[in-house]
Formats: sequence, structure tokens, C-alpha cells
Amino acid sequence: MKKHYLLTPGPTPVPKEIAKTIERPIIHHRTAEYKALAKTVNENLKKIFKTKNNVLTLTSSGTGAMEASVVNVLSKGDTAIVIRGGKFGERFAEICVSYGVKVVPIDIEWGTAPEPSLIEKALRENPDTRAVFIQLCETSTATVYDIRQIAGIVKKTKAILIVDAISGLGADEFNMDEWGVDIAIGGSQKAFMIPPGLSFCAVSKKAWSMIKESTLPKYYYDFNKYEQLVDKGDSPWTPAITLVIGLQKAFSMIAGVGVDNFIKRHAGDAEFVRKHIKDLGLKLFSKSPSDAVTAIKIPEGVDAAKLINSLKSKGVTFAGGQGTLKGKIFRIAHMGSIVRADLEYALGKLKETLGEQKWQ
Amino acid sequence: MKKHYLLTPGPTPVPKEIAKTIERPIIHHRTAEYKALAKTVNENLKKIFKTKNNVLTLTSSGTGAMEASVVNVLSKGDTAIVIRGGKFGERFAEICVSYGVKVVPIDIEWGTAPEPSLIEKALRENPDTRAVFIQLCETSTATVYDIRQIAGIVKKTKAILIVDAISGLGADEFNMDEWGVDIAIGGSQKAFMIPPGLSFCAVSKKAWSMIKESTLPKYYYDFNKYEQLVDKGDSPWTPAITLVIGLQKAFSMIAGVGVDNFIKRHAGDAEFVRKHIKDLGLKLFSKSPSDAVTAIKIPEGVDAAKLINSLKSKGVTFAGGQGTLKGKIFRIAHMGSIVRADLEYALGKLKETLGEQKWQ
Repeated sequence: MKKHYLLTPGPTPVPKEIAKTIERPIIHHRTAEYKALAKTVNENLKKIFKTKNNVLTLTSSGTGAMEASVVNVLSKGDTAIVIRGGKFGERFAEICVSYGVKVVPIDIEWGTAPEPSLIEKALRENPDTRAVFIQLCETSTATVYDIRQIAGIVKKTKAILIVDAISGLGADEFNMDEWGVDIAIGGSQKAFMIPPGLSFCAVSKKAWSMIKESTLPKYYYDFNKYEQLVDKGDSPWTPAITLVIGLQKAFSMIAGVGVDNFIKRHAGDAEFVRKHIKDLGLKLFSKSPSDAVTAIKIPEGVDAAKLINSLKSKGVTFAGGQGTLKGKIFRIAHMGSIVRADLEYALGKLKETLGEQKWQ
Repeated sequence: MKKHYLLTPGPTPVPKEIAKTIERPIIHHRTAEYKALAKTVNENLKKIFKTKNNVLTLTSSGTGAMEASVVNVLSKGDTAIVIRGGKFGERFAEICVSYGVKVVPIDIEWGTAPEPSLIEKALRENPDTRAVFIQLCETSTATVYDIRQIAGIVKKTKAILIVDAISGLGADEFNMDEWGVDIAIGGSQKAFMIPPGLSFCAVSKKAWSMIKESTLPKYYYDFNKYEQLVDKGDSPWTPAITLVIGLQKAFSMIAGVGVDNFIKRHAGDAEFVRKHIKDLGLKLFSKSPSDAVTAIKIPEGVDAAKLINSLKSKGVTFAGGQGTLKGKIFRIAHMGSIVRADLEYALGKLKETLGEQKWQ
């Protein structure tokens, strides 16, 4: 079977070695064997999040973990600052509104990162703010935000900082404890190299003190229920066993190259893609490009759908734009198991296809 | 590798043919290929639920779907009747309480099925009841409830009937539309033969009219978001792609024997297990035994943990009791890909182990 190059920001390709572990006879989750594995997974997740806090594993897509981060810390009528610089920033605001949380939006131009001073100003003007919601990488615009600086601002206040690091984690630099992030969210189908179905929430002490006061209703996502079992490798509900097993295999592959090397590799691959894109005469969409995914402006005279479909017929899948960016950009993921050779091949096909479409 | 007999009521063994589909290179969920598959999955789910309603597929364990069935139909302060005859009945009540729903519990002896007249009485005494929550098979006691009769009672009222059919579906007789069930809930790791991570909600017209009035907060589980996309094979959040692909493979295996034959087979296997259990001199725990799983009383003089562990060392995993039934019962699942030969082997080992433990 001819290899297909799936270069989308989730799902990312699942290495054969990982897929094979998923294929093994299933084991029960209330066994010593599974619990030992789940404990190891928690320890390995900590290494990626760069935290000493437990990382709670949920069976849900990333959006479920985003909702969990809202309902566990806030109460009805609370004020939250939400940075809206793309589809996923908008999603945080929508979730807050659904639960009766008062949203103070910071709307920024899509493709730009928020000036930290905007957050400082919003916190000053809204001293009752309980939480600030933001992305590490806003996937829809392929833009990385300066979480280090923003965390430095938020930690001086009573508010907590909640970072959707779903697409960025493992690719863009992220250091939960050192920077002072309170809740960090990850998803399985990104740099973790496994299929979708798992999401992760790492929770700081400051966040836990707020969780104790939260009155928003919750059950399946109640962090308390997970936290009291996580040290035993147990979970309140039946976990997505095969995906957790696959995740542990991914961690052993990552350990083979070293966690830091694995993460740093993404910066090099991202730079490689950006250079090639510029050499082709194309323009980056983001003013603060992520190391997980690159967004490229569809050049004038080129039909986005035609370009993407033509590449797909050649075995290369890029992601299009979402929402208002549909038809205006395309996105190349370079995370997880996507390696330099895959990118070289895909960029070659991109050049070829642009030539066929008589662009330039 | 020696075969291990995993005879627990979830996860159930995943056939090799299904596991192999999960191992294939992952495809993106916003493609024509995946959407066509997801549409077929919806049609095949309807055949198992015996309904013309759409079946919404969630990425969550069954508990998530139970919560979804509460938050989509009710509002704070609403009254709900909850049948509590085991751990999962209790769970529905806990979810309702978490959301400020007033619970009218019908507590029955564990291992018995509720007399339909109890529900009739509760509905009469609580005419403002909006919903009745019940199990098809209460997994913790391996007891099947008479949903047909109960649905006949509930459908004469304004209330809707919500059935947790997670462990029963595909094994115990169930006929959503003919009986008049309003929301039916399923889970992937039962008779569906695939790993945990997916849950299903089939929703009737009567339920939809109540959904329109519901004010409980929700986002990830908002049925409206799924319903408007399901006909296109699309979903609001990234689905657990590999599990959905595995599910379609399970459906093609089920189609090979015929849906009705597949379901009916369970009654024969359950009867086979019950007969053998009685022949061994053991006693059934349930007074209304399910065709998905059988609960057996731990006989006097036998240590439950020792029995289960000894069987496990011989390659046979049964489930113990949950909650107050821990140490008092063990449970043998006979659903999905568990076949007669597996049961014969496991029952042989059970006899052998009881002999070693000098019982009788």
C-alpha cells in the first residue's frame, strides 16, 4: 500500500509500532497490569507537561477537557477573561457562556498573538476575574502565544491561567510549573502520535484551591473523582484502554530520543517548513508561527479547494482553513511522528502542484 | 501466546479482525471517506437499537452518555424518577443530584427487577415528573428489567423514559421504537465487541421536544450539535476515529450472521451458563437474570478473591462484585465476541478451581 502523507494538525499519523500495541488482546482496566501501566502514563505525561502535578486522563476529545477546565474551577456569574484569536479561543468563550460565566473577551486579529499588556489591562479593569483562558497554539491560525509572559502576569493575581495546549503540547515550548500555568490541557491525536479519544488536564495547587469553591455542576468531568484514583492507576469510569496502552508505547518511543530532544526537533522541522514556504514565494499567515503547525496564505489566483484536493490525489493531505479562514489558508502539521522526509516529500508535491496550477 | 479468556461485562474481547482495522493508517475525520463510514455506522446502530431515530456517537465512556441524557432533557428543579437496583441506577441518581434535579428514587432489592406497578405509582404520586431513568441490564447485579412494560406505562404520561442499555444492548432483547423508549444509551466495549471509548444515544421525537425546553448547561454533550451533523457523517468534535472504524467492522461481522441472530444467540449462551451453574450446585444471584452477564453467589466457605485470582492464573477472567456485592458474587459475561466454546472452557476451569478449593 502506497504511503499517504497525513499532515493535518490532528489526527496525526499513528506509527505502526503504536498501532500494533492497540491491536493486542484487550486487558481489563481494574487489573494490576493495567493500573501499573496507567501510573506510568501519568508519570510520562508529567514529563511532557513539565509539571509535578498529576495529569488527569479523560476519555473525550480535547473539547471535553476544555469544558472540564471551566466546570471544575468556576461558579455561575464568575468573570473570566478569554483570548479570542481563532476558532479555539472562541470555543472557550462559548463554553463559558453556556455555563453562565461572564466573559471578558480579548479579541485579537486572527494570526497574531495577544500582547501580554492586553491581559494585564483586562485583569486590572476586572479585578474580580477568576480565570484567564488562552491557547498555547491556536490551531486554526497556527499561531503560538507567549504563555511564559502571560503566566507571569496572571500569577500575580487571584486568577488562574488555563491553557489549551492541545495542538501545541510536545511541539511548541511549554513549561507548566516553571511558567506558573494552573491548568494545562492536551489531546491524544497531536504530538502524542496516537488516535483521538483521550484528553489530558494537568492541575496546579492554585487551581485545586479554586476547584474546592466551584459550584458549576459536573459529574463525568469532576476532577476530584479522577484525582483521588490517579495515584493508584485507577479512574472513575471505564478508560479508553487501548488508547492508553498506545500512549505508553508512544512514551517509550519518545524516551528513546529523549523528551527534550523530541520536543526541540519540532522547532527545527517548523523552521524547515517556513523556509521552504518562503522559497516557494508563498506567505505565512501567522505573525507568530507555531512549531506544531504552519498556516500558509493561499496565493492569489489559486483555488484553495483545488490545491488541497489535487495534493490529496497525490497522497498528501494538508488541512484547509476553518471558519472565516476557509479558502484563505492551508495548514501543514509537523508534529509527532511526522518526520523531515515526510515534509520534504510533501513540500515537493506542493511545488509541483502549484506549478501545474500555473501559479507564478 | 496462550489465549486469555476475558469474560467480564466490559471490556469484552476485541476480535482480531476488528483490532486489525484499528491498526490501519489513520484517516482524517473531515474527509468524504470517513463521513461515508460514519453515516453507515449511524444506520447500523439504528438496527441494533431497533429505531428509526438517529443514534448520536459520543467520545466518552458510558457514564458520559448517561450524563448527556440528563443535561439535554432536564432543567434545574425538575423531578425525575430513578430506579435504584444497583450501582448504575445509583449513578443516574448521583448525576441528577449533581445538576439540581429532584430525584424520586425507587429503591429495590439488588438482584431483583422493579415491579412496573412501582413506576406507575411513582408517576401518579409525582405528576410533575419529567423523566424516568432506568437500566435495561443493571450490570452490577446482572439483572434485566422489563423495559417493554415500563415503557408502556411511561408513554401514557408527559414524562420520557431514558434507558441505560449500555451492557444489555445487543444481548438482552431491546426494541426502542416498538416499546416506546425515548432515550437509549449504549457503549462500545460490550456486545459491540470494540474497545471502550465510544458511547451512543438514540433520541426519540418526544425526547427532542423536551430537549428544546431544557435549560441545564451543556456544551460537549449538547445533542443539538451532534444531531445537525449526523446525517452528513460529521460530528462537532474530533471523533475517536479508530474506534468508529472498528465499530463498522463489528457491524459487518454482525451482518454476516444477521442482526437478529446475533442478538438471539445471547439468550442461548446465557441459558447455557445458567444451566451449568446450577449443575455445579451454585446459585444465581439475580431473580431476573440478564442475557448479557450472569451473576453467581459465592458459595459459603469459598473466598471470592481467591477464586477469581486462581481462575485468572488459569487464563480465565471473571468480574467480581461491585460496591456492597464485593466478595459476595462473581460475574460471567457472555456477550459480543465471547462464544460458546469460551464459556465451556471457562466453566470447566471454574469447576476445577472449586474442586481444588475443596468446596462441597
